[in-house]
Amino acid sequence: MNYIYAFAEDQTLTNQELGGKGANLAEMTRLGLPVPAGFTITTAACRQYLASAKQETGFLEDELMKAVHILEEKTQRQLGNAEQPLLVSVRSGAPISMPGMMDTILNLGLNDQTVIGLAEMTNDPWFAYDCYRRLIQMFGDVVYGIDKPIFEAALTALKNKRQVQKDTDLTLVDLKQLIETYKGLYVAAGQYQFPQSVDQQLRLAIEAVFKSWQNPRAQTYRRLNQIDGAMGTAVNVQQMVFGNYQGQSGTGVAFTRNPATGEPGLFGEYLLNAQGEDVVAGIRTPEPIATLKAQLPVIYEQFKTIANQLEAHYRDMQDMEFTIEAGQLYVLQTRVGKRTAPAAFRIAVDLVDEGVIDRPTAISRLKPTMIDGLLHPLFETSAVQQATQLLTGLPASPGAATGAIYFDAQKAQQAHEAGEKVVLVRQETSPEDIDGMVISEAIVTSRGGMTSHAAVVARGMGCCCVVGCQQLQVDYEQREAHFAGRVLKEGAIISVDGHTGRLYLGALPQQTGVHETTLGTVLSWCDEIAPFAVWANAETPQEVATAFEFGAQGLGLVRTEHMFFGPERIFKMRQMILATELADRQVALAALKKLQITDFKQIFSLAEERPCTIRLLDPPLHEFLPQNEVEQAELATALGISLAEIKRRIADKAEVNPMLGHRGSRLAVTYPEIYQMQVLAIVESALAVQTTYHHAVTPKIMLPLIGTATEMAYLKQLLQQTINDYLVENQQQLTYQIGTMIEIPRACLVADQIAATADFFSFGTNDLTQMTYGFSRDDIGHFMPDYQQQGLMPAEPFQTLDQDGVGALMQLAVQKGRQTKPDLSIGVCGEVGGDPTAMPFYRDLGIDYVSCSPYRVPSARLAAAQSQLTLAD
Amino acid sequence: MNYIYAFAEDQTLTNQELGGKGANLAEMTRLGLPVPAGFTITTAACRQYLASAKQETGFLEDELMKAVHILEEKTQRQLGNAEQPLLVSVRSGAPISMPGMMDTILNLGLNDQTVIGLAEMTNDPWFAYDCYRRLIQMFGDVVYGIDKPIFEAALTALKNKRQVQKDTDLTLVDLKQLIETYKGLYVAAGQYQFPQSVDQQLRLAIEAVFKSWQNPRAQTYRRLNQIDGAMGTAVNVQQMVFGNYQGQSGTGVAFTRNPATGEPGLFGEYLLNAQGEDVVAGIRTPEPIATLKAQLPVIYEQFKTIANQLEAHYRDMQDMEFTIEAGQLYVLQTRVGKRTAPAAFRIAVDLVDEGVIDRPTAISRLKPTMIDGLLHPLFETSAVQQATQLLTGLPASPGAATGAIYFDAQKAQQAHEAGEKVVLVRQETSPEDIDGMVISEAIVTSRGGMTSHAAVVARGMGCCCVVGCQQLQVDYEQREAHFAGRVLKEGAIISVDGHTGRLYLGALPQQTGVHETTLGTVLSWCDEIAPFAVWANAETPQEVATAFEFGAQGLGLVRTEHMFFGPERIFKMRQMILATELADRQVALAALKKLQITDFKQIFSLAEERPCTIRLLDPPLHEFLPQNEVEQAELATALGISLAEIKRRIADKAEVNPMLGHRGSRLAVTYPEIYQMQVLAIVESALAVQTTYHHAVTPKIMLPLIGTATEMAYLKQLLQQTINDYLVENQQQLTYQIGTMIEIPRACLVADQIAATADFFSFGTNDLTQMTYGFSRDDIGHFMPDYQQQGLMPAEPFQTLDQDGVGALMQLAVQKGRQTKPDLSIGVCGEVGGDPTAMPFYRDLGIDYVSCSPYRVPSARLAAAQSQLTLAD
Repeated sequence: MNYIYAFAEDQTLTNQELGGKGANLAEMTRLGLPVPAGFTITTAACRQYLASAKQETGFLEDELMKAVHILEEKTQRQLGNAEQPLLVSVRSGAPISMPGMMDTILNLGLNDQTVIGLAEMTNDPWFAYDCYRRLIQMFGDVVYGIDKPIFEAALTALKNKRQVQKDTDLTLVDLKQLIETYKGLYVAAGQYQFPQSVDQQLRLAIEAVFKSWQNPRAQTYRRLNQIDGAMGTAVNVQQMVFGNYQGQSGTGVAFTRNPATGEPGLFGEYLLNAQGEDVVAGIRTPEPIATLKAQLPVIYEQFKTIANQLEAHYRDMQDMEFTIEAGQLYVLQTRVGKRTAPAAFRIAVDLVDEGVIDRPTAISRLKPTMIDGLLHPLFETSAVQQATQLLTGLPASPGAATGAIYFDAQKAQQAHEAGEKVVLVRQETSPEDIDGMVISEAIVTSRGGMTSHAAVVARGMGCCCVVGCQQLQVDYEQREAHFAGRVLKEGAIISVDGHTGRLYLGALPQQTGVHETTLGTVLSWCDEIAPFAVWANAETPQEVATAFEFGAQGLGLVRTEHMFFGPERIFKMRQMILATELADRQVALAALKKLQITDFKQIFSLAEERPCTIRLLDPPLHEFLPQNEVEQAELATALGISLAEIKRRIADKAEVNPMLGHRGSRLAVTYPEIYQMQVLAIVESALAVQTTYHHAVTPKIMLPLIGTATEMAYLKQLLQQTINDYLVENQQQLTYQIGTMIEIPRACLVADQIAATADFFSFGTNDLTQMTYGFSRDDIGHFMPDYQQQGLMPAEPFQTLDQDGVGALMQLAVQKGRQTKPDLSIGVCGEVGGDPTAMPFYRDLGIDYVSCSPYRVPSARLAAAQSQLTLAD
Repeated sequence: MNYIYAFAEDQTLTNQELGGKGANLAEMTRLGLPVPAGFTITTAACRQYLASAKQETGFLEDELMKAVHILEEKTQRQLGNAEQPLLVSVRSGAPISMPGMMDTILNLGLNDQTVIGLAEMTNDPWFAYDCYRRLIQMFGDVVYGIDKPIFEAALTALKNKRQVQKDTDLTLVDLKQLIETYKGLYVAAGQYQFPQSVDQQLRLAIEAVFKSWQNPRAQTYRRLNQIDGAMGTAVNVQQMVFGNYQGQSGTGVAFTRNPATGEPGLFGEYLLNAQGEDVVAGIRTPEPIATLKAQLPVIYEQFKTIANQLEAHYRDMQDMEFTIEAGQLYVLQTRVGKRTAPAAFRIAVDLVDEGVIDRPTAISRLKPTMIDGLLHPLFETSAVQQATQLLTGLPASPGAATGAIYFDAQKAQQAHEAGEKVVLVRQETSPEDIDGMVISEAIVTSRGGMTSHAAVVARGMGCCCVVGCQQLQVDYEQREAHFAGRVLKEGAIISVDGHTGRLYLGALPQQTGVHETTLGTVLSWCDEIAPFAVWANAETPQEVATAFEFGAQGLGLVRTEHMFFGPERIFKMRQMILATELADRQVALAALKKLQITDFKQIFSLAEERPCTIRLLDPPLHEFLPQNEVEQAELATALGISLAEIKRRIADKAEVNPMLGHRGSRLAVTYPEIYQMQVLAIVESALAVQTTYHHAVTPKIMLPLIGTATEMAYLKQLLQQTINDYLVENQQQLTYQIGTMIEIPRACLVADQIAATADFFSFGTNDLTQMTYGFSRDDIGHFMPDYQQQGLMPAEPFQTLDQDGVGALMQLAVQKGRQTKPDLSIGVCGEVGGDPTAMPFYRDLGIDYVSCSPYRVPSARLAAAQSQLTLAD
């Protein structure tokens, strides 16, 4: 059995034997690229070494001698030769990448003799002795476990003595002295010696790499990443090349395309007569790669050809390191290049256009989280680094915005009307704040989580929002707010980063917005393969328009209650709620109906023939009632009853657990006239839009909070009767559906019974999660931090679908619902409808669509398509 | 095909052909009992009649003539014969009993001639003409549809004219005149005539009975009771016998055993020379059946033999009607006798002792609801009828009690200490009222349902309780209450009936309590066959003692939080809750631990070796905090902090939906020291009791509100560690279990994961129902009445297990839990643990025990056994 192979010597070997780095070097060698020569000691050797009782490399001896000999022939240099010294790197390389977890030794082959040869070869004695010094340090650390700080301390002591700041300020003499000091440290640490025998250097280095497979941080990394500990690591021994060699030499880094924009063409930088270290140390400023063309045109063209060849071979943008040694170009490494979100989209589309990859491959390379960065502004990175950070909250809705802080909706509106850019800062928001929220650049709250009112509304509007700022106290009396102790008066300017949750003092400049038409191209490919459609949750005309602009194929959730919070509307609503007689309620409802028709007409005309799912009134009625006495008094006057009576009627509606109280379809059992008004408003609007715009409208009327088949059947019959009576009376025809949210656990358990009368199902995952987990979203702040601290709740179930619990109920509901109606339309319209990690689950569930807030539609389209690709794997 | 059979002529015929009454008469005839002769026209005849286009009885004519002829021979009387007139009754009798739904005609065969013969035979002309008058009236009503009130009006007019009050004050002449008037009413109603032909009377009567099968009230009854409308009714024609005939005659009613007490021996009453009518009209007072022995010893013995024969034949206590006509005893009817609850138990046990029935039969004849009447006092029936009823509420806990009304716990206690019997009347109760509740005879609230705090606590104590009195307003300011408008001051006396939910003004006398040792006998038989055990939910020593007295085999739910509401304890509790530092909390916990040890020792010593399941602290902490400012101020002073600070800390604990908030095991994730204190209190108590009483104690420690496997595993490990550290340190040994409530829907869905670390499961059906249905028990009052009115919620799911929804989750949990641990102990400890209708479901579920409040234990034991019997069917 062989343990050592020159790069590309045996093309049947894979990552398993050669490790990732070894395979990569072999691959480049195989492609005929100018890779510095070297060989790989296989993982089998590592396993053999670690398994033997007395760990020794004796079994490798013959092969190693042969491999070194071949390498010396190839490079025309010899290990230990003082004139033409061969220097090598010894690096680990496991089958699965474990960045930085194991050890590396560079410049191996230097000793008191060969260092002189290197100094002559490079015409740079300082560099040669610095390499030697580094080898001694690295070798001591890796082979003998002499801690780096011991060497660093000696270096620092010398610099102090010489009163210099930088390593490079030391003289050649200093370096030679340091080398002697370092050698002394070996002896002091345990009677070791730095071996002057280069053969011994090589053997000890190889053993050290083998052993590093078992070091504690490598073991921890493997445990965390579930990597098999029995594999072992390969060892790569490779010729060192020098960009500071005599003649045409240099070093550089380049990408095959611009990693910031994705623009095609070589992008990178280089330095002539330099080592990679020089670039890192910032001693000299590198040149853009384009100027290499003028300086070394032949080498530039050669590199360009190589770059193209690598990109074509790996079928993705490459990030390459190269060195020119005495007019000879070497490629040291290539890997898939990291890139910004806009670049990722552009590169994906370009590679498809160029015929390099197919569309599914392009889709699979993109991440849903990249899209937020495309849709929302960002602050300039340099400005952020220098800004005064106030505090960090939860990043509830992405974006970057600057404005003057105001503490209530009314003040915010006034400032906005006066031309100010406004940031609404509150303890929490409620539906009453909606007008102030709409005109704000950003919304900040001290309470609430990722699914609080502020967060949900802001995401719906695409407005930057940070919530749950525990270090923020708003003092409404004093009109000031404490940001982690720093007091800011109303009107002060802050900047809000909705991507990170950070707040900054003052105004920060924004990056110029990147608008990518390539996004649309990729998403249209996604729609072709996605296993289900993506719809949107939206109700205002602005939200609805945004949803369709972002490619939503329908509206999965139009919440009608959000429509009742305008100043004119809420009064009618309150009048309706507080009516004690049906007749009074009917009067208020008639006024509300006119307003609802206005809303629905706008939605239906924007939606054209796309399905619109309108949910009838859902929240407990007391949410609409004023909580402070001033407003209560106003209402009393307006309704012509006493304040005491108003208070009594409001108290009457109060509930201990409103989430599980008189809301949703339960309202319609008590007050059928509310839902009857709403369905007539829907029907009249649909008919009007059909007539005006000549396109079909098929409203999907959705009943919230259905828990039993009897209430579903009862309300369906009631509303169908109401609608049909209207249609007959007015000699009109309309196709419509009456379906239900599935958001109560019981509804999942009796979904077969409910499906008998429901035309469609739509999972309301927010409520379903609340009830399945027994978690009130408004109250989990009291204990969720403790759970997360103890590691008892890895993912917030309102953000990431709980597949074991909530998901199991959803599976039951789909199976039972389709048992009754095989072609039942089923969607998911709660907060986790846009959760990318849940998409494979939704695919297996066999639903027809997910529905999420407009700004999450693009990432949901991508994630949906990707779920289909993982299936194909 | 034959349509008519003399009684017992063909013994192969069943209820289906003969109807219930016909089969019963045939059966008695077959037994050789002296039943008046007669014949049955089968249901087939009715179907034939109703099916034919022109409804006629022609097809029966020949058979009917023959049957009448045979009857005349048997009775030695002839239909229409003026000297020896045969009179018959014509009655319907359907295969399934439809009491009072169809028609009957008595004394058929009377006309202007035969009435004279009857007068002579009975030597009672008044009686004969009264019979004739009644026949004419009944016949007019049944055959021609001439409304009864028309006849009644004529009767009343005559009485007015004669200035008499009672029918019996009319003279013979008056009756004769009335008969002529009645005949005139036939003509007036539609040119009808009362037929003097007795043949015609018979044919018309038979047709009328056939038709009555289709009358509206019969149709409604069949629809409501799901009785097949195609069956038709049979018709029974039977000789009338007269207890007022010349010679030894009389009539009576008797039971084979005392229906009030169950005491063996004939029980009943009779009148000589009288018709049944006389008894009903109350003209004469009947004699006890025993005196018949002296008056007519032969007949008495004959009747006694018949009674024994009937009871032996039907194997149950019989309710019989008999008539003696001229020395000849006739049995007119026998049926299973109705009886009181104590009688039912005594009879069941006696019949088993006598070898008449076996134990399962005895068990199957009893109803779980009977037991309430055995355990709790009742008001005297006669007193209730005359009492002034105030209003009706929901009967939350059975019993009957009288006392002075008080509106708060403190006043109630003061009155109690002054020697008064007290009824606590409140809008609602809270844990703070517990001391006032304990000393009250009865508890009444205006709000809340069958599972409100008042209801649950009262049932636990076996205290009479009426809740949800919508017509009750308590005015705490004026110290008065409005009972449906009637104002009563504090201190006024009322009586409360917890069986019916009725409140009465003043004091009502109670029935002498019936304590039945037979109950214990029956329940011990039940335990032998029950498919699962019955445990109790109890925590006070009194409750625990009651539970074991009533045969609980363990404690399924000891709620530790109820122990913290005493005045001394609640302060320590508040101190613990409001502590901001762990050290302060530890001080308060140490004090609470001592008190808990006192509690647990009592429980363990009462329980002996029975299992005790102790639930650790469950409710949200703010339930323990004072809500009114006076108490808050007291607390502030006691804790040495400002009122504002107290208010702030209390507000901090407030939650929007406390039911789904920071409670149950979630408290222990935040404050592990609370549960650690509780488990150590349990362990120390168990060890102490083991030492003192020399019996093993095996505490089952129960974690509430577990929803994930991670929190179960985390808390189990934490508490196990705490306990084991203590045991090791103190060199002690103790067997204990740590299990969980299954009360969150998610827990059911991941029960396989939770079972990995839980030692047992106990379904908390209250919370499970709340979350599965999305119903807050405290708030369903806002909409449940509307649901019930619309028929959308047939049973209150907190009273009757929702098998389709909640039950489906329970099935999942049992299946998944036992998949992980095949021998996992599983119980049901919520409110529906004692629901008799759920017992067959629990049997199929395969649980180990149900646990309910102590006073429900006996009925649960009965229902559990019955569930096994239905399985055997």
